[in-house]
Amino acid sequence: MKKRYLILLFCALLMAQHIWGNDDKSGSAVSIAVNIPAQTGLDSRNDISGGDAGQDTHPEEADSDFAGILLSLVIILLAAKIGGDLCERIGQPAVLGELLLGVILGNFYLTGFGGFEQIKHHLSIEVLAEIGVIILLFQVGLETNLQEMKRVGVIAFIVGMLGVILPFFLGWGVAAIFLPEATVYVYIFVGACLTATSVGITARVFQDLGRLQDKEARIVLGAAVIDDVLGLVVLSIVAGIDSAAAHGGGGISGMGIFMIILKAFVFLFGAVIIGGWVAPRLFKIASRMRGSGLLISFSLMFCFVMAYLSKIIGLAPIVGAFSAGLILEEVHFYDFSGKGEHQLEDLLKPIAAFLVPIFFVYMGMRVDMTSFGNTAILGFALALTAVAIIGKQACSLGVIFEKGINKIIIGLGMIPRGEVGLIAASIGAKLKINGIPVIDRDTFSAVVIVVILTTLFTPPVLKYALAKNKSDK
Amino acid sequence: MKKRYLILLFCALLMAQHIWGNDDKSGSAVSIAVNIPAQTGLDSRNDISGGDAGQDTHPEEADSDFAGILLSLVIILLAAKIGGDLCERIGQPAVLGELLLGVILGNFYLTGFGGFEQIKHHLSIEVLAEIGVIILLFQVGLETNLQEMKRVGVIAFIVGMLGVILPFFLGWGVAAIFLPEATVYVYIFVGACLTATSVGITARVFQDLGRLQDKEARIVLGAAVIDDVLGLVVLSIVAGIDSAAAHGGGGISGMGIFMIILKAFVFLFGAVIIGGWVAPRLFKIASRMRGSGLLISFSLMFCFVMAYLSKIIGLAPIVGAFSAGLILEEVHFYDFSGKGEHQLEDLLKPIAAFLVPIFFVYMGMRVDMTSFGNTAILGFALALTAVAIIGKQACSLGVIFEKGINKIIIGLGMIPRGEVGLIAASIGAKLKINGIPVIDRDTFSAVVIVVILTTLFTPPVLKYALAKNKSDK
Repeated sequence: MKKRYLILLFCALLMAQHIWGNDDKSGSAVSIAVNIPAQTGLDSRNDISGGDAGQDTHPEEADSDFAGILLSLVIILLAAKIGGDLCERIGQPAVLGELLLGVILGNFYLTGFGGFEQIKHHLSIEVLAEIGVIILLFQVGLETNLQEMKRVGVIAFIVGMLGVILPFFLGWGVAAIFLPEATVYVYIFVGACLTATSVGITARVFQDLGRLQDKEARIVLGAAVIDDVLGLVVLSIVAGIDSAAAHGGGGISGMGIFMIILKAFVFLFGAVIIGGWVAPRLFKIASRMRGSGLLISFSLMFCFVMAYLSKIIGLAPIVGAFSAGLILEEVHFYDFSGKGEHQLEDLLKPIAAFLVPIFFVYMGMRVDMTSFGNTAILGFALALTAVAIIGKQACSLGVIFEKGINKIIIGLGMIPRGEVGLIAASIGAKLKINGIPVIDRDTFSAVVIVVILTTLFTPPVLKYALAKNKSDK
Repeated sequence: MKKRYLILLFCALLMAQHIWGNDDKSGSAVSIAVNIPAQTGLDSRNDISGGDAGQDTHPEEADSDFAGILLSLVIILLAAKIGGDLCERIGQPAVLGELLLGVILGNFYLTGFGGFEQIKHHLSIEVLAEIGVIILLFQVGLETNLQEMKRVGVIAFIVGMLGVILPFFLGWGVAAIFLPEATVYVYIFVGACLTATSVGITARVFQDLGRLQDKEARIVLGAAVIDDVLGLVVLSIVAGIDSAAAHGGGGISGMGIFMIILKAFVFLFGAVIIGGWVAPRLFKIASRMRGSGLLISFSLMFCFVMAYLSKIIGLAPIVGAFSAGLILEEVHFYDFSGKGEHQLEDLLKPIAAFLVPIFFVYMGMRVDMTSFGNTAILGFALALTAVAIIGKQACSLGVIFEKGINKIIIGLGMIPRGEVGLIAASIGAKLKINGIPVIDRDTFSAVVIVVILTTLFTPPVLKYALAKNKSDK
């Protein structure tokens, strides 16, 4: 049983060592042949004509490491499946295993073997991971009924609001206690770091356990969308403080904030209304086209367009992908069933099986365990983590008058923090007041620890709460 | 009917203009929020601790253009589906439409609108395209029976050999006629450029028309594998001449060539034998694991490992992917059917529908139409194209004693030229003898034209020959 893992691990190490342990790859004629394909293609302009050489910023060396990308994909997929298997055996959601194996791969260099470090340097792997989480939220949207989402709209709104306000002031308070000599800017930034929920993990836990149909899941997903809009507002304020402090003026006005909120809500409602009108017509056209794979291709295009639009508005691409799923859930693809095409959900599964684990393993890989080595800040970090978790429990106040909703699940589902917190922290790190960065290295590490702990804490605890809720009913 | 294309084109242009036509993206608070996510993630080390900053060569700006990548994917998929639809309506294989729409997108800048140019600069799109063609050949391998491949092995070997030797000497001859004052090195390089078949297009035509089961398809696929091995040898010789000319000695010995061939054949036979032993055991293990999407994940891993191995040996990754498909065709996944998983072929279809068109559109995009503007070399280029096509017809001599095989299909299937020709040409372009590059700009352009014409020529002609062959029987 364990022997097979050893064999698999050995193979992975061998391959990693083979390509990465050996820098002297040129020399033999065969190696020349290996490395050459990167330098050209069907496009001759780079090499010879040189007419617009300045325009082409294509990094040459990257494709020559296409072998490295393939190997990275194999290692990531293998880690995902091993992690998922182990976690499911001990009754945990697969996503926890993917994250943990990612943490192991990402910090393996601490053992002295740096072969896995190269995975982090492939930009394409990051892009595949990003596409993976978009596909995940698209899937989740497809499994979520828009009408039922609307029914929990107000509650989700309140839950989302509470989940931003409370962690913000709790974070402020903890910072004020631990960093008494710091300025109010520091407290604002620390508070901002604790606001935004990273819904990918929660969505995946609900999906792993087949509980996306629960009312709690809908509320958390809806609240996470609101949360993302508010996160955008917080980021804009933080960025406004940044420019105000740096340039001694400007900042962001109440009007500016209002416009951001307006834009975001116009997008969200506009997407659902216009998308709901466009989608059936788009798929009607697609169903009349000739060729194969039309349903999946047009669905992906729809999903990517929505993700793109939400990204350029300033929201997370996953918000757009989730909306795309919600909209397409309403569309019935009668026109395609006659052509022998499968259900959209079935078609998405293999793509998700390929790309979604890349996101979670990659997310785990970016966890930097050395953050925990800094014992000086560990107390501050743990206090922040505690209020990050407690703060989100306030979300359950939003459903206090609703019957039949498990408040604990709502609170737990909102816990994971991700990119937005780190973005706020990194803005603070770059912002200097009187020559001192607002977020210094220690505070930044503390925020990183909050992200790590809330990420790893949620899957097992949420799984426990969901299991308990089921048995109670 | 045509109106819908106009609407779709208009939307694509609008989006492209929106993101690319406008360089002044910073300024508002929202734009700041948009651009920030690129700079961080779960990994704090880049931003703050700086401990191993030198190690991380991650290009920051690339991810900030994740929106651009999403939009590029939408444009590519839309172009693929429109091109495929139009071509199928006029009775042509979909792949021709994907290539042609790619050519239009890639040369649209000539009209003055440069919005599509950005697509070429996303390395991730190139990686997705490369994964796409790997998936295609994996699929083709899965649809091909290994035993039947073995039965045509000797014929395929002869066909592959002939398809390298004849075009080489014909290319030499044409170069000698058109470039009488040039050295023998030039003739060798031009000959080398005409040797290798780019099997992706032929495989796709057979697949589009549902004719992968034809004996002709097997022979062409087998010959293309042999061809790739010989292409490796040609490249090594060319590289050997390169180093001999540049450093006044060395070059490549007969022993060196023998070793390359040996390595390649050991890999190919080793892959089939060892892979055939490993695969059932690997999938037996996988079938006992818990989690979802195990069949597709482990199949992709197997495919990627084989593609990786063939790449590091010096062969094209698609050769490994094809071998992986051949091996798994033999494995029967009884263990998975009990878990309600679909057939592997069905699982691969949506992934292929997403990624394969990216390859062909991208390939079309890299076609540089300005090559045709050089009328001075057009005669040379057309003569080279003619012998490139005629030379591969010699392949049909390999099946002269076989009954029931359409010789024309064999010859036509071997026509497409791709990367290997351009690689040989680009080595020649870098190699200078007495200060003059062996392959000058004009000769390089001529080779590019050969690649373009053979690529676009094959699908319609092969389709015609296949249709005729069916009606004759």
